[in-house]
Amino acid sequence: MTTRPEQAPLLGILGGMGPLATVDFLGKLTRSLPVTCDQQHLPWITLSQPGMPDRSQSIQNGSDAPLPYLRQGVAWLAEQNVSLICIPCSTSHFWFDQMQEASTTPILHIADATIEELRRDTTRQTGPIAVLATRGTIKSGIYRDRLLQAQCAPEELSEADQTAVDDIIRAVKTGHLADARLNMHALQTRLTQRGIGTVILGCTELPLAHDAANAPLVGIDVTLALARTVLRRLGYTPRETD
Amino acid sequence: MTTRPEQAPLLGILGGMGPLATVDFLGKLTRSLPVTCDQQHLPWITLSQPGMPDRSQSIQNGSDAPLPYLRQGVAWLAEQNVSLICIPCSTSHFWFDQMQEASTTPILHIADATIEELRRDTTRQTGPIAVLATRGTIKSGIYRDRLLQAQCAPEELSEADQTAVDDIIRAVKTGHLADARLNMHALQTRLTQRGIGTVILGCTELPLAHDAANAPLVGIDVTLALARTVLRRLGYTPRETD
Repeated sequence: MTTRPEQAPLLGILGGMGPLATVDFLGKLTRSLPVTCDQQHLPWITLSQPGMPDRSQSIQNGSDAPLPYLRQGVAWLAEQNVSLICIPCSTSHFWFDQMQEASTTPILHIADATIEELRRDTTRQTGPIAVLATRGTIKSGIYRDRLLQAQCAPEELSEADQTAVDDIIRAVKTGHLADARLNMHALQTRLTQRGIGTVILGCTELPLAHDAANAPLVGIDVTLALARTVLRRLGYTPRETD
Repeated sequence: MTTRPEQAPLLGILGGMGPLATVDFLGKLTRSLPVTCDQQHLPWITLSQPGMPDRSQSIQNGSDAPLPYLRQGVAWLAEQNVSLICIPCSTSHFWFDQMQEASTTPILHIADATIEELRRDTTRQTGPIAVLATRGTIKSGIYRDRLLQAQCAPEELSEADQTAVDDIIRAVKTGHLADARLNMHALQTRLTQRGIGTVILGCTELPLAHDAANAPLVGIDVTLALARTVLRRLGYTPRETD
């Protein structure tokens, strides 16, 4: 077997859920690191396997169909001697325990990273909080449980607003970013009328639809939170701003 | 060893040269594929190893210092049963033959992909052509040789203009995109005064500095050419426009 000459710490990324969210994560990881040359960047391996069954639908149907892909993906990454694994897809974290069981390498949980980022910068949160995510993530409660632990009960979305979130995610996955941004702006405008001040962009497609400069609400970007927390865990110091 | 459940064709990408150029390639690869769901995207493995010695400096110094990283990188990708390998870094193609020798899987040459794209859309080229690239790529002649074969002799840059290209590449590699774009615009304005009509953006950092909507010259994006050609080789039909 070929020995790679690249030195540790090597990051392992399980991607493709969806593909554009993976690229967004890799861009945030790269731009979050202040460097003066290529050689100061961290080495990584990404396996992008978009062909696995839909995660949110599986959770809603009580099916574990994506699990073999997730378990074998992280097991393969662990065999490549990565120091840490991360998965830029919130919904897949429904199966976090089973994935960690399949991997000898620690996996950083995306919701832990998000809460860590929120705690590091409490000034970012304004008013009551809501979680925007797939129905699968909402059902799994990975963000809600941690927000409750942090004494910060999130507001629930109406059925109509959850449908709007579903539509935005689908638009990003199929490359219709302009539509996604328009719908995200309209959704956030409705949420301000309910008194919401901050949204967790709790699906890695959603930051791609959130135009921070013009958004009605403060958006907590879970993709950026994952990138920054990964860098800190591997001994790097990320830039203070995106 | 873990068997990945993902089906072929699996693309292998040797990246990190530089890291932002790799992310740009992955974004272009993803956006070039018209899909209606995640599952229609192609699976891939990327190894990003930014720690290897600088390619352009090595070529200028007559050193093969990056070669062990390049050979072992492609050999490792080939062992993962990828169907095709590509390397979104022009300069590394100086060692193309040695890399192909180390890999049982075919590697698509970035300059072949660029000429294939130029031939598919001859309307894009306007007036005399110049190659913007690292000094290492210019010395290796990978674009010049293929342009000459296509009866299209490129104009050489002055020493001052080549220094401007070096500065733009360094600015992209260190994340100073606004500076890179200003300097690229000034360079292209000077080249129009010499009668140049089209530039090959012959280093994967350069498309990141080229603002197509406001650029004085037509820019041929080698990163996009590589993404589109890879998709065609693997049986996909890329979108006609970026």
